[in-house]
Amino acid sequence: MAALERKQEKKMITKQEALEQFFQAWTPSPLIEEVSLKDAAGRVLAQDLYSRVTLPMYRVSAMDGIAVKSKAFEDGDPDTSSWKPGVDYERADTGDDFPDCYDAIIMIEKVKLMEDGSVKLELPLPFPVKPGTMTRPAGSMIREGDLLLKQGSWIRPTDLAALAVGNYPAVPVVKKPVVALIPTGSELIPPGERVKRGDNIDTNSAMVSAQLEAMGAETIVFPIVRDEKEKLKEALDQALKQADLVIINGGSSKGGEDFNVHLLKEQGRVICHQVAAVPGRPVSLALIQDKPVINVPGPTLAAYFVTDWCLGALVSRWLGSVRKERRKITGVLAAPMDKGGPVQILHRLNVVEREDGTAEIYPIPMRQSSTAALLSSDAQYVTGLFEPAHQAGEMLEVELVE
Amino acid sequence: MAALERKQEKKMITKQEALEQFFQAWTPSPLIEEVSLKDAAGRVLAQDLYSRVTLPMYRVSAMDGIAVKSKAFEDGDPDTSSWKPGVDYERADTGDDFPDCYDAIIMIEKVKLMEDGSVKLELPLPFPVKPGTMTRPAGSMIREGDLLLKQGSWIRPTDLAALAVGNYPAVPVVKKPVVALIPTGSELIPPGERVKRGDNIDTNSAMVSAQLEAMGAETIVFPIVRDEKEKLKEALDQALKQADLVIINGGSSKGGEDFNVHLLKEQGRVICHQVAAVPGRPVSLALIQDKPVINVPGPTLAAYFVTDWCLGALVSRWLGSVRKERRKITGVLAAPMDKGGPVQILHRLNVVEREDGTAEIYPIPMRQSSTAALLSSDAQYVTGLFEPAHQAGEMLEVELVE
Repeated sequence: MAALERKQEKKMITKQEALEQFFQAWTPSPLIEEVSLKDAAGRVLAQDLYSRVTLPMYRVSAMDGIAVKSKAFEDGDPDTSSWKPGVDYERADTGDDFPDCYDAIIMIEKVKLMEDGSVKLELPLPFPVKPGTMTRPAGSMIREGDLLLKQGSWIRPTDLAALAVGNYPAVPVVKKPVVALIPTGSELIPPGERVKRGDNIDTNSAMVSAQLEAMGAETIVFPIVRDEKEKLKEALDQALKQADLVIINGGSSKGGEDFNVHLLKEQGRVICHQVAAVPGRPVSLALIQDKPVINVPGPTLAAYFVTDWCLGALVSRWLGSVRKERRKITGVLAAPMDKGGPVQILHRLNVVEREDGTAEIYPIPMRQSSTAALLSSDAQYVTGLFEPAHQAGEMLEVELVE
Repeated sequence: MAALERKQEKKMITKQEALEQFFQAWTPSPLIEEVSLKDAAGRVLAQDLYSRVTLPMYRVSAMDGIAVKSKAFEDGDPDTSSWKPGVDYERADTGDDFPDCYDAIIMIEKVKLMEDGSVKLELPLPFPVKPGTMTRPAGSMIREGDLLLKQGSWIRPTDLAALAVGNYPAVPVVKKPVVALIPTGSELIPPGERVKRGDNIDTNSAMVSAQLEAMGAETIVFPIVRDEKEKLKEALDQALKQADLVIINGGSSKGGEDFNVHLLKEQGRVICHQVAAVPGRPVSLALIQDKPVINVPGPTLAAYFVTDWCLGALVSRWLGSVRKERRKITGVLAAPMDKGGPVQILHRLNVVEREDGTAEIYPIPMRQSSTAALLSSDAQYVTGLFEPAHQAGEMLEVELVE
């Protein structure tokens, strides 16, 4: 086994190397589309956008209050008992423009508006009333030509407000890549059917599809394809017509029915096969008709992990954006973690938050645990190649799974 | 001003107190709906779900390989030169069931399948071949009755796989609360129109709507309502018919046109008004026809902050879920931050990551900065009441804005 493993390892490249090799061979061809602001959250901006306006166009009130003539305050607080609205003052709330004969604002809390239109001020005023007091200058929200948001940014809710301030009702975003997902396996049945001996439920279509959508892709899920080469070829042809990237899920390893990699070789170019990352080592990255076709292994956690590192990188590359990071948490390792070997390993973990705010991290044993327990874990950690072992009691920073 | 502020502060309650008072008065009435797995990501599970099946139903192969009879290996490695498929062995890949006459698996890497149907083994084998070698027991994915996911959980992609393993094609989730958003202000125009002096662009409808959708709500955005009480009442009546929660955005402070809080008092019960959190202090939380009606202040950052802390809490309460936390980052404060006073203050910050992996945190001065600059910031920090000042050089943990 040791000899065999060594032989295999020689061929194996890291995730990073696999992606670098693939990116040398593949050039994404994203399109741009215009979407209204209400549909732009979570999309990737396709070009730098600059403000089309200066706002406010003219100085405005900085508070709810009354606009007054500062000249009247030059020699101390004036007698306001005969003031008239529209002559000596005018109401102006936060952000309001007001006539040019006024040049200062007194906050409403210091003002009593009398029935006869006159005014009582609560003296002393907190600020001397001078030209510009309690006003905001033109351009205090935005100036024409100011950068609003950079190309490649994920558009956040607050960015929508910034784009609105710049007077954009719609913005150019990168069109989502369409990923076709072809689940394969004669033993697979969709969830919800009566399960017979030998059946395996398709756990991956819903999961991988949701992973891809969270990455910013659109998905088309094909019906389950049985392990027959002709059927798979038909589905692949169809997928290549409809999608920008294709996932063939299952049939990726060395089993007798695992002819998928052969099909990829026949139809296009396999850039790499076998990556030093477990679970999911037998992944193949191919190009067919200049489109990525990824053979993602079938076991649920393998499909999860390969979709995460491999498709995640491909979709980001397509979108021209930096991938959103996971939340991290640092906690005390409650059990030791083996030293890393020649492959990187995905460890699934549970996190228990203590009352004092610290966290305990429990590795979930891969072999002894049910698939369901591994799937529902709180957190994960991927060991580096030949990373030293971690002892119980050690502090470790891990990724939260969301 | 100091005296006035003290007077105001007496009436002011904290965000937490406001929410507690409101939750005593308001009982959410969420409904449950069934959605297919493909639509369940990002939704909140409405009840604990347990597996309906045991998977695999019977022991399966743990590797790609051949199923053999362990008895043949009792006295050492057997002569396999006359083995026949279907008699002495059978192909069995990872997860495959195989006939009951076999009870162990030999990995395919150690096996050469000959043209005449016989087998050559690469000796020595890494493990002794005994009953159960390289097989996985029934139930190793999931056992009937195992808890799959708890009520109130946000459904993640990996949870979809766990729910599929438990044989659920669809799951009960909490129906999204419908939030109606009524933008108000005679000076408001939608983005994209020609801006005239005195106009203000509606920055909030797209932003608040996106914030609410990220919280798990559905939104209906009303057209802009001018500052006329009758028009606002009409919109409010309409909103109360269509929605579970209503936001009136703007007209919340003490300005002359700010009659919104009076309308709320006429139509229902104002639970609290004025909260010790800036920007957005003049927020009102009311109940009309047993539905929350929140008067969210108009200035963009105030609308953002109130939507975040107040609507965020209401929507979570409705969904029966714990709110998703933001990513945090700890960095060195590059400039001092004033000590906290009698109100909590939202500080917007820029984060610069240094080459050595550490981060510098730059507070963005509220008064001197454009609204656009405050909106596009990377991070934020909310000071506690009377929190001590922070010095430049101090380490501070802040929330990343996403």
